[in-house]
Amino acid sequence: MNLQDIQQRLGGERVGEVTTPLLGVGTIEGANETRITFLAHPRYRSALAHSRAAAVIVGESDRDITGRPRIIAANPYAYFARVAQMFSTTSTVKAGISPQAFVHRDARVSADAGILEFASVGAGAIIAEGVEIGPGCAIGENVVIGRGTKLAARVTIYQGCRIGQRCIVHSGVVIGADGFGFAPEFKGTEGEWVKIPQSGAVVVGDDCEIGANTTIDRGAIDDTLIGNDVKLDNQIQIGHNCRIGDHTIISGCVGIAGSARIGSRVMIGGAAGILGHLEICDGAIISAMTLVTKSITEPGTYTGSMPLMKHDDWLRNAVHFRRLGAMADAIRKTGGSK
Amino acid sequence: MNLQDIQQRLGGERVGEVTTPLLGVGTIEGANETRITFLAHPRYRSALAHSRAAAVIVGESDRDITGRPRIIAANPYAYFARVAQMFSTTSTVKAGISPQAFVHRDARVSADAGILEFASVGAGAIIAEGVEIGPGCAIGENVVIGRGTKLAARVTIYQGCRIGQRCIVHSGVVIGADGFGFAPEFKGTEGEWVKIPQSGAVVVGDDCEIGANTTIDRGAIDDTLIGNDVKLDNQIQIGHNCRIGDHTIISGCVGIAGSARIGSRVMIGGAAGILGHLEICDGAIISAMTLVTKSITEPGTYTGSMPLMKHDDWLRNAVHFRRLGAMADAIRKTGGSK
Amino acid sequence: MNLQDIQQRLGGERVGEVTTPLLGVGTIEGANETRITFLAHPRYRSALAHSRAAAVIVGESDRDITGRPRIIAANPYAYFARVAQMFSTTSTVKAGISPQAFVHRDARVSADAGILEFASVGAGAIIAEGVEIGPGCAIGENVVIGRGTKLAARVTIYQGCRIGQRCIVHSGVVIGADGFGFAPEFKGTEGEWVKIPQSGAVVVGDDCEIGANTTIDRGAIDDTLIGNDVKLDNQIQIGHNCRIGDHTIISGCVGIAGSARIGSRVMIGGAAGILGHLEICDGAIISAMTLVTKSITEPGTYTGSMPLMKHDDWLRNAVHFRRLGAMADAIRKTGGSK
Repeated sequence: MNLQDIQQRLGGERVGEVTTPLLGVGTIEGANETRITFLAHPRYRSALAHSRAAAVIVGESDRDITGRPRIIAANPYAYFARVAQMFSTTSTVKAGISPQAFVHRDARVSADAGILEFASVGAGAIIAEGVEIGPGCAIGENVVIGRGTKLAARVTIYQGCRIGQRCIVHSGVVIGADGFGFAPEFKGTEGEWVKIPQSGAVVVGDDCEIGANTTIDRGAIDDTLIGNDVKLDNQIQIGHNCRIGDHTIISGCVGIAGSARIGSRVMIGGAAGILGHLEICDGAIISAMTLVTKSITEPGTYTGSMPLMKHDDWLRNAVHFRRLGAMADAIRKTGGSK
Repeated sequence: MNLQDIQQRLGGERVGEVTTPLLGVGTIEGANETRITFLAHPRYRSALAHSRAAAVIVGESDRDITGRPRIIAANPYAYFARVAQMFSTTSTVKAGISPQAFVHRDARVSADAGILEFASVGAGAIIAEGVEIGPGCAIGENVVIGRGTKLAARVTIYQGCRIGQRCIVHSGVVIGADGFGFAPEFKGTEGEWVKIPQSGAVVVGDDCEIGANTTIDRGAIDDTLIGNDVKLDNQIQIGHNCRIGDHTIISGCVGIAGSARIGSRVMIGGAAGILGHLEICDGAIISAMTLVTKSITEPGTYTGSMPLMKHDDWLRNAVHFRRLGAMADAIRKTGGSK
Repeated sequence: MNLQDIQQRLGGERVGEVTTPLLGVGTIEGANETRITFLAHPRYRSALAHSRAAAVIVGESDRDITGRPRIIAANPYAYFARVAQMFSTTSTVKAGISPQAFVHRDARVSADAGILEFASVGAGAIIAEGVEIGPGCAIGENVVIGRGTKLAARVTIYQGCRIGQRCIVHSGVVIGADGFGFAPEFKGTEGEWVKIPQSGAVVVGDDCEIGANTTIDRGAIDDTLIGNDVKLDNQIQIGHNCRIGDHTIISGCVGIAGSARIGSRVMIGGAAGILGHLEICDGAIISAMTLVTKSITEPGTYTGSMPLMKHDDWLRNAVHFRRLGAMADAIRKTGGSK
């Protein structure tokens, strides 16, 4: 593959050509003479000079930053991603049902779908064309999986949930477990939690990716809804009846309580938390380890994390967190404006 | 099913009757004319007027708030939960051992228990009446599972752990993995962590629900103990030798370090953290994303989360978190009482 | 087993001898007359007087604190760990491939390795001597697992990842899922996330332990690297291209974003978060629920958690978190040195 091949597939402007075939992509620092790299941030301009890469993808403003063979693209990072996809050897689906899988006789599995060993598919399930169900997956009754979606090993989809097309679901994901709903029935210390049956499902749109060990609970009455092109990292927890809009991207370890409504193109940093029944508007950005305790109605970046300190400094300061109110009063008394 | 049927099963006072059979439950906003809904909070009173629901469950103080057919109950939310259970079609256990399961010849499985495909049951395990072991579960040696307990797909119970009766264990749960115990044996930068064998087990009481991908570690020497009617949401981590009292309810993503003792009827919000070797008294309430760093000895609500701000505000304020001590000193100097 | 047996294996100085054989280890409070316990912290000296333990392991400074049979060791806690290992009956590996497992014909499995029921091993995988692959594990193509390593039930290792020798990997672990990498390609509200293929792998060193439901993502281009003797608790998330140094120990629920470089002998408390592309130097200690937002270049303990308060106190104080900047200004104005 050379720059001309790439340009023919992906467009952009080509300047020069590599002398030996490209074998893959690389970072500016890690690429060798068989690789193509990219420059997407001015910070790396100086590093590019020392890169061994055979070619580079640059933006319009960097078109003359190097003399080496290059492609000029409107969005060099996205262009790079597509080049990397060209080099990536995604294994083709092994069509057919493994003799060591279990498929209920009332399930409908497309002839060119692959059901790998120790996967089970329940009655009434519909597995579309080009779907791959990895080893050890458990697909419940009446589940629908859209065409081209791939489930890695050991994914669970509970009964009645629906996954769209071209999704990637990673190992350990659990979709459709019961939402967490109990009514308290106590008198004093006696009583019990009464389980509220969770009779909704989970509906996931098209082109979503769901990271390893992430969990999405089924709705109590209505469904939990995940839009299209939603990207979820690992170990995210999404409570029952949440709705997540298209193109929203959520980093690892985030927890979203029940019935939260997250808009489109929202970005949520790692380990953030969203309380239940809130709304977050389209395009909002939530920083890492921030707890969202009320609805967010205008776009922007929102943060609520504690800064890092040396532990001794923290000890000196933390005691005052508990008397900020008193400090504010004292300031007011001494004539400060607040 | 009509209101009379419900009242006969669950008690309460009935006013009026539906004209066509009820088909299920619904929310005030989502219910159609075949549904029964409930009013548990004054906030929803006005919405009730516009609900299409055929009937409603209300509390004593709301007995006359509507003219539609209704049931008056002491605890309308719990009553609603039980009505929903009446409508819920919980699948009956498929008795018998799947030909694609593995059950060790020295395990004892009740004739009416169901062991689904690709589940494995180790030597010495005891599976009681009415238990369902979902697809792909791994039940270790000498595990005991009490009657009527249901394990969803892909649950792991390590050797020697015991689960009570009527529990629900969701997919991806791991009970009885080794607690995290290592003794440091270093001289300067040389040395290693010496593993402390974890020879205790996990004992879970009756009527517990354990959410998807939650993990509960086995004890180092003594057992990790979970009481009765304990409700655990998804992705909770419970360290070795913790003890959790009856009726305690814990939201998703909570982490509890080793040897913590949590009382009864404690409520822990999502993503909270509990350090090890602490005690939390009966009835305490911990807010979301709060780190508990010392024992809690009196009931009440405890909070330690950082408020949400616009990022620019956070930048302006956060710098001062690191010099609160100095600010307090300055206030003292200028004559404020601190 | 008596003290002489132990001393012959582990060294140390012996004073006295038990009169009946030891049957195991115990805590100071929980041990009965058949157990050996240990004293590693002065705080427990008084409790030792009332212990029923037959013998005790003490440090040099406590050599005369009791008259009971004892061993004096340089590091009583590590010594205790090794004694516990002597009593621990780790089940021997069941050599051979279960007839209910799936091993690709092009995989190489050592004759004395054990592949348990419903485990699958892909083409090109190499499973060394003494390895145990638990029930329901999914081992991808070209995975290498070093000798003596044990995988509990339901572990996933994606294609091409390599695990060292003598590791313990607990149930639900996912190693090698795709890192979270997407290039945004949006114009206004239209567009999509372009997936960056994750073509690196995960390489785990020797003597590591990886806790239940922990996830370690594969690298984007280069590999994600875990050193030797690294101990990871449950439900940890490690992003793509992280590097973690030897002997580092990480508590449960920690999230580490992509490309972070964690040094050797680092200790990270539960539910801490590490942002991406940071470096943490050798020997640093991060407190629980602390967010690390910048590189740490000198050893020490670092903290950034919010203190716990009664909720009413929190309400009174939290409002001022949002105007600390204004408070600081006011102090300056009234003449405080700030």
